Amino acid sequence: MLGIPALIVMPKDAPAIKIANTRGYGAEIVLYDRIKESREDIGTRIAGERGATIVAPYDEPHVIAGQGTCGLEIAAQARSREIRLDAVLVCCGGGGLTAGCVTALAAEAPDTKVYAVEPGEFDDTGRSLAAGHRVANRPDAKSFCDALLAPTPGELTFQINRRLLAGAFAVSDREAAQAMAVAFADFKLVVEPGGAVALAAVLSGKYPIKGRTVAVVASGGNVDRETFSRALAQVQV
Amino acid sequence: MLGIPALIVMPKDAPAIKIANTRGYGAEIVLYDRIKESREDIGTRIAGERGATIVAPYDEPHVIAGQGTCGLEIAAQARSREIRLDAVLVCCGGGGLTAGCVTALAAEAPDTKVYAVEPGEFDDTGRSLAAGHRVANRPDAKSFCDALLAPTPGELTFQINRRLLAGAFAVSDREAAQAMAVAFADFKLVVEPGGAVALAAVLSGKYPIKGRTVAVVASGGNVDRETFSRALAQVQV
Repeated sequence: MLGIPALIVMPKDAPAIKIANTRGYGAEIVLYDRIKESREDIGTRIAGERGATIVAPYDEPHVIAGQGTCGLEIAAQARSREIRLDAVLVCCGGGGLTAGCVTALAAEAPDTKVYAVEPGEFDDTGRSLAAGHRVANRPDAKSFCDALLAPTPGELTFQINRRLLAGAFAVSDREAAQAMAVAFADFKLVVEPGGAVALAAVLSGKYPIKGRTVAVVASGGNVDRETFSRALAQVQV
Repeated sequence: MLGIPALIVMPKDAPAIKIANTRGYGAEIVLYDRIKESREDIGTRIAGERGATIVAPYDEPHVIAGQGTCGLEIAAQARSREIRLDAVLVCCGGGGLTAGCVTALAAEAPDTKVYAVEPGEFDDTGRSLAAGHRVANRPDAKSFCDALLAPTPGELTFQINRRLLAGAFAVSDREAAQAMAVAFADFKLVVEPGGAVALAAVLSGKYPIKGRTVAVVASGGNVDRETFSRALAQVQV
């Protein structure tokens, strides 16, 4: 929008639609191997060569603040409907969206509890909250929630999240796929795997909603049609 | 919402998800054969037996007025963004949504042209506009746009549409499927075949948008996952 050149370092197993749309919006893309290479090293090298500024995907105050507008919108929508929210559940990878939302909601709706939701094998934020310091996921951890595969919580995001979050939940890939199917069938929304985990925490009963008023964040629709069709096939209508 | 019992007469080839969701909302459903039976006759018989009131799906002032709120919303959203719309394209079967939208827009945005968009073999509104009176679709006409298969324009809806519409376009099933795929890939929306025809008229170039500001109505997400997956497969990402 501002005409500033952008280069995105993206794992080569990212959804084809995410790669195509990012290019379509005008960005240059450098693909890397999620297992064998470090995107931080690649980004540092390219930024040095080009005199570019690195914008980290989550561990960056302005990114956290931008994602926090989601929390502001939830608070504003709840207010406009005169709803008091008992809880807000947020999809969590590196923790930027979570940190932004919980910061906004702590100010706008201090009685509302905010929870992070992660894929089962990428429950680093949940385990880090329990340990009181940042712990990593296993290097061989796997999930089809491709947007939530950060190896550890961010430094900045964890400082915020440990102070403000009420807790964290983890869901299986199958539960995330079922939530995608429910979003399709009932809400008519295309939600990517990692964007469906907060909804999955509610649908699976891991966070019980009976008698509660709850908002879930369904963030991101970067999902290839094959993956989407496979997820839909998990639910009978 | 008002606790009034509802019985819906629905073609037996309606999407399974539409049947399941209608039941899920509490309605009783009577299925009929679209080719061999008349839903009007079935409805009249049941209403007589039960002392019920018939609510026609499109040829009914309150239904038209209710669907016209879509036109009001388009006008309000355009105003709030200080946009002057050159045209609004509306999906058209029996013509209720079209009649409602064009009535609202004629009052709220009289300079905006409103067009109906129909499936190719169900272009009865377009041909009726040209003829100056209501003409029917061929009995053997086929389309996967299952919500737009009314045999003729409604009496009431056509009285409105002939006076206020700027014209009509027809799109093929393939063009509608491609529009569903674009709604998936770019807008992250689940749109049913009949709900995608107005978008298809723009994407196919049948209504040229260059230099124009245009709104399209994308209405309805009653589509089974198999049909949706097949439509997505028509577009490469």
